[in-house]
Amino acid sequence: MADRPPYHMTPDEFRRWGRAVVDWVADYWATVERHRVVPEVEPGEVRSWLPPAPPEAPEPFEEVLADLDRVVLPGTTHWQHPGFHAYFPANTSGPGVLADIVSGGLATQGMLWQTGPALTEVEAHVLDWLVDLLGLPERFRSTGAGGGVIQDSASSATLCALVAARERALARGAALDRLVVYSSEHAHSSLEKGARVAGLRPENVRLLDVDDTFALRPDALEAAIEADTAAGLVPCLVMATIGTTSSLAVDPLPAVGPIAARAGAWFHVDGAMAGSAAVCPEHRDQQAGLEHADSYVFNPHKWLFTTFDCSCLFVADRAPLVEALSILPEYLRNAASESGRVVDYRDWQIPLGRRFRALKLWFVLRWYGAEGLRHHVREHVRLAGELAGRIERDPRLELAAPARLNLVCFRHVDGDEATQRLHEALNATGRVYLTHTRLAGRYVVRAAIGAWTTEQRHVDALWELIDELA
Amino acid sequence: MADRPPYHMTPDEFRRWGRAVVDWVADYWATVERHRVVPEVEPGEVRSWLPPAPPEAPEPFEEVLADLDRVVLPGTTHWQHPGFHAYFPANTSGPGVLADIVSGGLATQGMLWQTGPALTEVEAHVLDWLVDLLGLPERFRSTGAGGGVIQDSASSATLCALVAARERALARGAALDRLVVYSSEHAHSSLEKGARVAGLRPENVRLLDVDDTFALRPDALEAAIEADTAAGLVPCLVMATIGTTSSLAVDPLPAVGPIAARAGAWFHVDGAMAGSAAVCPEHRDQQAGLEHADSYVFNPHKWLFTTFDCSCLFVADRAPLVEALSILPEYLRNAASESGRVVDYRDWQIPLGRRFRALKLWFVLRWYGAEGLRHHVREHVRLAGELAGRIERDPRLELAAPARLNLVCFRHVDGDEATQRLHEALNATGRVYLTHTRLAGRYVVRAAIGAWTTEQRHVDALWELIDELA
Repeated sequence: MADRPPYHMTPDEFRRWGRAVVDWVADYWATVERHRVVPEVEPGEVRSWLPPAPPEAPEPFEEVLADLDRVVLPGTTHWQHPGFHAYFPANTSGPGVLADIVSGGLATQGMLWQTGPALTEVEAHVLDWLVDLLGLPERFRSTGAGGGVIQDSASSATLCALVAARERALARGAALDRLVVYSSEHAHSSLEKGARVAGLRPENVRLLDVDDTFALRPDALEAAIEADTAAGLVPCLVMATIGTTSSLAVDPLPAVGPIAARAGAWFHVDGAMAGSAAVCPEHRDQQAGLEHADSYVFNPHKWLFTTFDCSCLFVADRAPLVEALSILPEYLRNAASESGRVVDYRDWQIPLGRRFRALKLWFVLRWYGAEGLRHHVREHVRLAGELAGRIERDPRLELAAPARLNLVCFRHVDGDEATQRLHEALNATGRVYLTHTRLAGRYVVRAAIGAWTTEQRHVDALWELIDELA
Repeated sequence: MADRPPYHMTPDEFRRWGRAVVDWVADYWATVERHRVVPEVEPGEVRSWLPPAPPEAPEPFEEVLADLDRVVLPGTTHWQHPGFHAYFPANTSGPGVLADIVSGGLATQGMLWQTGPALTEVEAHVLDWLVDLLGLPERFRSTGAGGGVIQDSASSATLCALVAARERALARGAALDRLVVYSSEHAHSSLEKGARVAGLRPENVRLLDVDDTFALRPDALEAAIEADTAAGLVPCLVMATIGTTSSLAVDPLPAVGPIAARAGAWFHVDGAMAGSAAVCPEHRDQQAGLEHADSYVFNPHKWLFTTFDCSCLFVADRAPLVEALSILPEYLRNAASESGRVVDYRDWQIPLGRRFRALKLWFVLRWYGAEGLRHHVREHVRLAGELAGRIERDPRLELAAPARLNLVCFRHVDGDEATQRLHEALNATGRVYLTHTRLAGRYVVRAAIGAWTTEQRHVDALWELIDELA
């Protein structure tokens, strides 16, 4: 038996192949715009390039690396391509990836403070930093009754908020099949999915009317709550959105929050994409009223250069969250938890295990500094504003919603068919990728600006394509 | 305005710092055993080493790197330490970390096939490879009605199975508050947590009696189902465990599966840790009866050298899972999904977003080959067997459960206090870390062998410590 078992990658082999992989990623970033944004592959094509059975013997790492070019790249939709304007950005960055190397190397599990003190405390601390950085309400700080936690996605975070809200309502004597949740019809589908997972009745999800900026109408919310309460139903949770997926509409939190509070409902706010804009003081108007929220989620992995997954959930009071999600088997008992002096993040989330995700946020905040983050958010907003202006001035096109932050929603004046044709023609070039939505029943193309590789020249090129194909 | 925005890390800076970080991880692995396994830090101590406010200006990356040694290491419980025998292993590896660098670099979102064809198809393919590699039932292959998906944890996978089971029961006309789930009292706490999240009544979770190997007693299951059915309750899901957390007990699947089927309940099997042992044909006995399962989860991030998070959920029929978890808003509609020719993994999980986790598994399987994985699993089993033998032969100690695979449960013959004193003395050395459980009401120390750095000499050293401190 050799001193070191023969199959593990040795630290020195890791140095060698680590360099090769780092270089591969650097090359990818430097050349990403040479690819089509969306690949031309048929369903099943990528699989057909793979051997049917797993390897019996180890393969040389050269071959694994070569398959990144042979199999992965030709089948990849390039989210970091400067022409990626689909959905919302999910931007990565050098410091984000570097932190993940450390996280994977340590492979610490942060289910309990005990199993990862630094993991736990850096997370709590950096989430408090975000309160400063974004000008969030003081009640979200971990030094008071609240605090923040990193989750994999806003969907999971919203589910956790919903479970806490549900348990609170049940503890007050409500029946599960009577509980109702409310949002605008433009809220993210994760609320509906969360309600389903949490066992609420599908017919008890209210997707309410919006005004002409596509924001929730407080009068619609009040009317729905009144009707439900009269019918013996119980308002459980109201979700407002800071920046809807379709059009970045902002629900009127200052009006919605007090309505939720009067109804005894949990007030959850989803700022998944647009929340990051608050690094710039001039974009904090959108979060006026957030001090009413029981919970708030936004995703640094969308527009704050923090490699997926990093979704931050803040709560004003951590007690109902922890009570809802804590189950303590014998094998997890430990002195630190019993002292009451520590946070055990397993009680703030669905999974038990968790990796050191706070490293990504810590590295990103320190590499960019607040000024760097502000610079790039402002740059994306400026580029989107320029594009919106060009569309507005073009008689063939019109904005389909007020242009806000880094999203431009537009359509062809000739109607849905023309808009859809333009949309398909744009994507067919392979140089850009945009996705669609429907606003007021009409087909709308969305251009989201937020890949970290996107610069002035790329948005100029996008406009030239629109101009040519409209 | 410069051509490249000024704050992003350039590809060349990433090359430079990537090397430094890769070297840092390699050095960490090479020297991890010099650390105490569990650090000597007080609650709040790590936070006290951090500045109170986030940085306004970018910081030099040298300072970030230096803080790994100043802040992170002194506050870290070292899960990759060769003396880490607590809980279950969560072992990482070189190829696992290398794949994560690529995943973070591409930063592709795999919510839909369309948004990540290679991500989706490599995942489906590599999970089919696992069917071969572990000798799993054919019905779990994606080429039939079933298929596999990577989740963050067994907790989340079990929740998804439970939601699918719940929806199936509700569709058959059962009321939510009548649904019951069953497992042994030694099942993982994630079932109880999942039931709570899914809105089942807490009193409808049956944690049933075990036999003297700590495995579920089929007669206890049958009796519980009979009593519940007679009381008008509806069996929703039965969970059996291949390798319980406390003692690696294996529930009798060949008996339990048919009981679940006769009761109309979903049969879910949790092989989170021990499932990986099936890479060795001689350890496949434990999964006899798995062909009855509707769903099965095991975690390559526990004992198969695949950096967290990588938990594999297999289903025999993907339709009920997808039906339970699919919500389709306009902004996610696309031609590929509508063609019915692709898998959209967002419908197989709670979150919407997902990263390219299959890369880790692909890299690991190719680096080690089946033979490498078998070698290391066998080596851990051999080391645990050796330790169990020494304990068995020592008159001061006794095994608290049959030694199985890589886990040894033992106690002091003088009783709980002596066992607890021995346990605390072992951990106080800082050279090893073991956790405890209770079996048949008695305090038991668990020694799990599975860190990838653990070799013969470390298990010898563990025995010497036990011998000295008993």
